[in-house]
Amino acid sequence: MPKIVDHDARREEIAQALWRVVRRDGIRAASVRTIAAEAGWSAGAVRYYFPDQDGLLSFAMELVSRRVGDRITALTARGGAKGSPTVVVLRYLEEALPLDAERKAEFDVWLAFMAQAQAESGAGTLHDTVETVHNGLRELCAELVNALAEAGALRDGLDLRLEVERLHALIDGLALHAAIQPNHTTATRLRRLLRLHIDSLLSEKPLQTKDFSSTERQVRRKPD
Amino acid sequence: MPKIVDHDARREEIAQALWRVVRRDGIRAASVRTIAAEAGWSAGAVRYYFPDQDGLLSFAMELVSRRVGDRITALTARGGAKGSPTVVVLRYLEEALPLDAERKAEFDVWLAFMAQAQAESGAGTLHDTVETVHNGLRELCAELVNALAEAGALRDGLDLRLEVERLHALIDGLALHAAIQPNHTTATRLRRLLRLHIDSLLSEKPLQTKDFSSTERQVRRKPD
Repeated sequence: MPKIVDHDARREEIAQALWRVVRRDGIRAASVRTIAAEAGWSAGAVRYYFPDQDGLLSFAMELVSRRVGDRITALTARGGAKGSPTVVVLRYLEEALPLDAERKAEFDVWLAFMAQAQAESGAGTLHDTVETVHNGLRELCAELVNALAEAGALRDGLDLRLEVERLHALIDGLALHAAIQPNHTTATRLRRLLRLHIDSLLSEKPLQTKDFSSTERQVRRKPD
Repeated sequence: MPKIVDHDARREEIAQALWRVVRRDGIRAASVRTIAAEAGWSAGAVRYYFPDQDGLLSFAMELVSRRVGDRITALTARGGAKGSPTVVVLRYLEEALPLDAERKAEFDVWLAFMAQAQAESGAGTLHDTVETVHNGLRELCAELVNALAEAGALRDGLDLRLEVERLHALIDGLALHAAIQPNHTTATRLRRLLRLHIDSLLSEKPLQTKDFSSTERQVRRKPD
């Protein structure tokens, strides 16, 4: 009788081994060999899940994407963040910013993945994954901006589509700056800049917090 | 008598060969071998200027930095840009955005360089260069924001230091988005978003264009 392998459980196990390597030594240290050693598997068994370095990077990127998606789903499942519109929006966006070692490791994976995807000629597989992740964050920005609009919290005359793009670009730029100069673009500064930006979009008339809390429950994000 | 080599001229020649390779085939195609072939030199002669792949990336990054710096210096030397504060500021910032094939190739070099620098453990040489380039763009943002402030063009109550950071992050985020999805984040959209952002910083009272034009001449940037 053939051996029955629970691929989901093994995939989860290899994902955890990969993440320990990335957290400890960085994404560049992740190879079929180092991950096999970490998991206590043979290199051959690891190659079932990712045959080469591009496959490994894709696996890592999907893992990061799932981690961010799961946190946002969990946040929404708990009834969403509570507080003023700015606080609620910040709470969601913080899940995508490198504010601690875990999220910094996630961003490093994304950066390595993107640089590798840029090296692909034409529209390769890596580039498709980059676009999926990129569109996921844009979608989150769109849902948050729309929730603010529906709550009547935004200034008059904003072009919502452009504001989604601006917020999205700002978040990626801030994440990049935190990666380049962690001692300058600290977690505190990231939060301050993001708060400043959200505040600049809001109308100056005071808003009932509960108005926004109810609208905010519309913010749902499918895990990637 | 030893052969006299004009290293500046040879360095310029190799820089031009490197740039032709990058423009045509991307930074990943650049190697000691491909650049030697392009320049019609021996690999040994090229290795004098960059012994290995990290050295090549550093050389390319310095070249990009010089190109951007030279354009900004030339713009200022021509008396700066003319027009409303927004137009003038945009004109400078556009030199750092991937709005055409030349500037897109520059950004690709920067991205590859940064991903490579992130892979260095601790504070390596590549990382120092990343910080120098990063600080150069921040400095340009600071000079532009300060010029707007001195011309009395800004809204009241802005925290200038934070606004410099926000502008800087937005520019890098936009550049990243143009690299990831050139068909979505087009040159037209980049310009619109940047204009929207600058406009959002300006006071609503109309400003004499000539007031700003004179202040704007204070915008000077040292070449990197």
